Amino acid sequence: MSETLDSQAAPAARRKREGRLPGRQDWSTWPHYQAAAAGFRGYWYPVQFSSHVGERPVRVKLLGEDIFVIRDRGVVRAMANRCPHRGVPLSYGNKQFPGTISCVYHGWTFDLETGVLKAAITDGPQSPICGKVTQPTYRVEERLGMVWIFVGDGEEPHPIDEQLPEELVSNPAVIGARIMPREGNWRFACENGYDEGHAKYLHRTALWRLFKAMPVWNTTKIVKRGRWIYRVQEQQFWDAEFPGLGRWTGLAWYKTKPPKQTTNIGNTGSHRQVNPVIAAQEFPGFASVSMPGVLRIAYPTFIHYEFYVPVDADNHLYVGVIADFKKGLKTIPFYFKYLGAVRWLFHGQFSGQDKWMVEVTDAPPEKLYRPDDSLLQWRKLAESTTEDRVDALAERGIVVSDPD
Amino acid sequence: MSETLDSQAAPAARRKREGRLPGRQDWSTWPHYQAAAAGFRGYWYPVQFSSHVGERPVRVKLLGEDIFVIRDRGVVRAMANRCPHRGVPLSYGNKQFPGTISCVYHGWTFDLETGVLKAAITDGPQSPICGKVTQPTYRVEERLGMVWIFVGDGEEPHPIDEQLPEELVSNPAVIGARIMPREGNWRFACENGYDEGHAKYLHRTALWRLFKAMPVWNTTKIVKRGRWIYRVQEQQFWDAEFPGLGRWTGLAWYKTKPPKQTTNIGNTGSHRQVNPVIAAQEFPGFASVSMPGVLRIAYPTFIHYEFYVPVDADNHLYVGVIADFKKGLKTIPFYFKYLGAVRWLFHGQFSGQDKWMVEVTDAPPEKLYRPDDSLLQWRKLAESTTEDRVDALAERGIVVSDPD
Amino acid sequence: MSETLDSQAAPAARRKREGRLPGRQDWSTWPHYQAAAAGFRGYWYPVQFSSHVGERPVRVKLLGEDIFVIRDRGVVRAMANRCPHRGVPLSYGNKQFPGTISCVYHGWTFDLETGVLKAAITDGPQSPICGKVTQPTYRVEERLGMVWIFVGDGEEPHPIDEQLPEELVSNPAVIGARIMPREGNWRFACENGYDEGHAKYLHRTALWRLFKAMPVWNTTKIVKRGRWIYRVQEQQFWDAEFPGLGRWTGLAWYKTKPPKQTTNIGNTGSHRQVNPVIAAQEFPGFASVSMPGVLRIAYPTFIHYEFYVPVDADNHLYVGVIADFKKGLKTIPFYFKYLGAVRWLFHGQFSGQDKWMVEVTDAPPEKLYRPDDSLLQWRKLAESTTEDRVDALAERGIVVSDPD
Repeated sequence: MSETLDSQAAPAARRKREGRLPGRQDWSTWPHYQAAAAGFRGYWYPVQFSSHVGERPVRVKLLGEDIFVIRDRGVVRAMANRCPHRGVPLSYGNKQFPGTISCVYHGWTFDLETGVLKAAITDGPQSPICGKVTQPTYRVEERLGMVWIFVGDGEEPHPIDEQLPEELVSNPAVIGARIMPREGNWRFACENGYDEGHAKYLHRTALWRLFKAMPVWNTTKIVKRGRWIYRVQEQQFWDAEFPGLGRWTGLAWYKTKPPKQTTNIGNTGSHRQVNPVIAAQEFPGFASVSMPGVLRIAYPTFIHYEFYVPVDADNHLYVGVIADFKKGLKTIPFYFKYLGAVRWLFHGQFSGQDKWMVEVTDAPPEKLYRPDDSLLQWRKLAESTTEDRVDALAERGIVVSDPD
Repeated sequence: MSETLDSQAAPAARRKREGRLPGRQDWSTWPHYQAAAAGFRGYWYPVQFSSHVGERPVRVKLLGEDIFVIRDRGVVRAMANRCPHRGVPLSYGNKQFPGTISCVYHGWTFDLETGVLKAAITDGPQSPICGKVTQPTYRVEERLGMVWIFVGDGEEPHPIDEQLPEELVSNPAVIGARIMPREGNWRFACENGYDEGHAKYLHRTALWRLFKAMPVWNTTKIVKRGRWIYRVQEQQFWDAEFPGLGRWTGLAWYKTKPPKQTTNIGNTGSHRQVNPVIAAQEFPGFASVSMPGVLRIAYPTFIHYEFYVPVDADNHLYVGVIADFKKGLKTIPFYFKYLGAVRWLFHGQFSGQDKWMVEVTDAPPEKLYRPDDSLLQWRKLAESTTEDRVDALAERGIVVSDPD
Repeated sequence: MSETLDSQAAPAARRKREGRLPGRQDWSTWPHYQAAAAGFRGYWYPVQFSSHVGERPVRVKLLGEDIFVIRDRGVVRAMANRCPHRGVPLSYGNKQFPGTISCVYHGWTFDLETGVLKAAITDGPQSPICGKVTQPTYRVEERLGMVWIFVGDGEEPHPIDEQLPEELVSNPAVIGARIMPREGNWRFACENGYDEGHAKYLHRTALWRLFKAMPVWNTTKIVKRGRWIYRVQEQQFWDAEFPGLGRWTGLAWYKTKPPKQTTNIGNTGSHRQVNPVIAAQEFPGFASVSMPGVLRIAYPTFIHYEFYVPVDADNHLYVGVIADFKKGLKTIPFYFKYLGAVRWLFHGQFSGQDKWMVEVTDAPPEKLYRPDDSLLQWRKLAESTTEDRVDALAERGIVVSDPD
């Protein structure tokens, strides 16, 4: 019977039947967040590995927009994919002249940098349409071996380095990355990543955690520092007796507890120049998040990042990055570790459990519990940051209406 | 070209073009019946074999509701499947403590009997959310080797034995059953089952009928007796001359006519204690139907039942049951007969013809003909029974609005 | 990431974001054309090869209508496919009596010529429903080895020979044809076929054109003659220097230019009786189009036709026909040429490029350019012809409302 189950239809029917479900019925508390089903505009997003973008167009969908990227004389360009003539994707075309893309259908030829229609081949050199049409283009950067696109509302983009995790900008690092298209809204992916509660329960069965104990529960506080909010674990409880139910623990003889970490808030200036891992770990709460949906998890010897890239309201890219801040020969063990373990245990099976939950999460309605403070603080951060952006744009005369 | 045919779109387009199709345009004559696309509430429905429900959750969809069933210390429990925390299906979880289900995502732990949230594992034993959330549960019974769920509107369920065919409650019987998910609305399945007309034409090619002649047509009356309405065949016509067309017959040298049956209405009280087959056959019209969509066909030596279980508006479960009212060693031939013939000829190919028709039926509009009196009487039974139920609930203060 | 691209959703999202796209936003300039997403009514359409229509029903969808065709005593009949009883497709049935179709479900039996219900087998010879229901029928003709159906609004069809290309009616010809179901609206297929611009660019890579040069561009005029509008090439340019970009040409050492053709407008009366190819070529502009979506391309030694048959708003049949106006033994080389080359190079790979474009065209919005005059004239022809038809029907008391 499972074939006939329609997880989309079921909730609606149920809600109608059963009336109000417990908890929060919508996200109107955070109107910008609620409206951002297809992502927050005004940010840089990674879309593809640099090495995968060559002389032929590569189609990408980002924040609901249909875009292609292409490399031209070394520089990556991005342009709206729909040919304005008859709506055919430009990504089916190719370069007939350097610095341009020609639509496969009638040879309309656009300048890759400016978007200007330079020629309509089948109408000859004096075609009166030349210069009358300009195709939207996007600003592009390459960082961390990936192509990043800025999706905004016509404003000048901020420098990408202001948006990247600080330690990645100024420190040499060796990188291992995966880009995976996944189903589900990007907000569920981001909330899952920063979520305090699920790691200890859902992931207890992950091979990645096989030899590492996790507490049953812990107390936490969320600390804001600059663009990031940090999840700082306070007390950890390694086993617990649940009244009327029994004992529950994440311990086992073959699992080791992690070493005790000291919380040295405000005492990290000197580290920052020395070891970026430690800098990112200044709140060893261990997980931090920033706009427009970036998770940073500082492990003792490396940092793991997740970029949740909105494709549309129902799909996102999971971009997982492991950075080891080493140089030269010291990077060699990293490759062994990454290819031998991280890539399939952590970015693979462990992260696959998250993928599963992101696909089946169905909220709101939602009834949040105490550890969901991490979600609430993230939504608050997203809301206030967006409010600031909208105000700043308005001052420059750009009125942004919510996508809905 | 057949790949491009869209049977859904075609009728709408055609109706618009051609104006009013002949006959009845909608089912507003029977408003409760028209509204019951996803089934009638207030009944017990079979959803799975008992032997398939063990210590792990089994997801079922019933009347549009997403439910899971699980066996706990021998007793089957049923609960709404959507975890109220973040909407993840509880059927992905498992038992962490006896008598409970824990959601796979964060370990929210519900009491299987009461639905009360007993623990949120990742928030520790003193989690303030404990006891604050109660998950909807469903009443469950096991009968005929199957798990039955009551779907109502908050009322106390009637005893399941009041709803089951009477002869199955108090007589020992050996049972052969199939549960098959099928496409199409449950009402088309039920109407097809009770339909007087199609058996003689559609099923004339079924192997099950290979050696059994069927009349070309017959006269019928519908007789109500208790919760059941019986289809009583009066005159049978074994061949017919159609004016301007020619002769048509269901006879052939290798087919035998069934033995003549006597109609002994009102003279069956003594049988009831003796032979349940005969009791069910008291109107040897041979087919009877009762709410919420149960067909009973009394053959000379056994009874066949079909339970049409609404999954949602577009899907149903076909639950076919053959009962032979024997005990002990006398049941052995039944198994040979069931496994050797009934299961694949009758529940298989014969019933597969019905499956096909239920999938492609597209009504209303419909132009009914004389043999469709069986359909009209069934709809009338459903309508008046539901009217009675709504009134009875209203007296107890439960106001039921139609699902649409 | 390409798996997650949804070409349907993208344009809508983009339009909203970016505001008005350049050019024409809708086709309200030609309201009949805009409304004819599922085709123009009042015409004959080819639906299947004659040889594929035998004694069993063949289901076809045409202009959104669900129809079946069947051969009865040599004559092809067409009837609405939905049995009015319960909506089951009559194409699942078969002939129980000559000249009739019986529905598979209950044996309702319709006269194939008149549509009258002659019998309801399961209700016996005196069934009161006989004669009370009449199923819609369609007029059918066979031409060019294919079955043609007239879809109108109740008017008497015009003779099919008035609609077929003139030269095919009165001259013997040997025919090679393909009927292919294709995705995309029939108007995109028709516009693609008559489109001046794309052939020289899109098809430059087709094997069919491997040894034949095509100009970079040319000037054209559209000339109306009777029911047809002709695309008359004036000046051809074989290479071109695009300012700021460079030289572009369709020439190559292994490609030959076509022979110069003389434009002999108005001087063709004498040819018409002699050589139909030359007659069709009287405007050697080479391509002409007529209602309801027929393309004719006159090559030096044969004529190629494309009939764009609307299935529904999203699908059409591509019917490609090659006609060689020869008789007797002279037809033999045609078969070698057709089966050896035309069928797979022209009707196959070349036409497959068009198929691809028709599937991905997404207009309006559209920003037309100079060569699109061919499209504009075709739309104008369709619009004025339809206006005339609507007026003529109104005089006969038939009011036709647009399908939307």
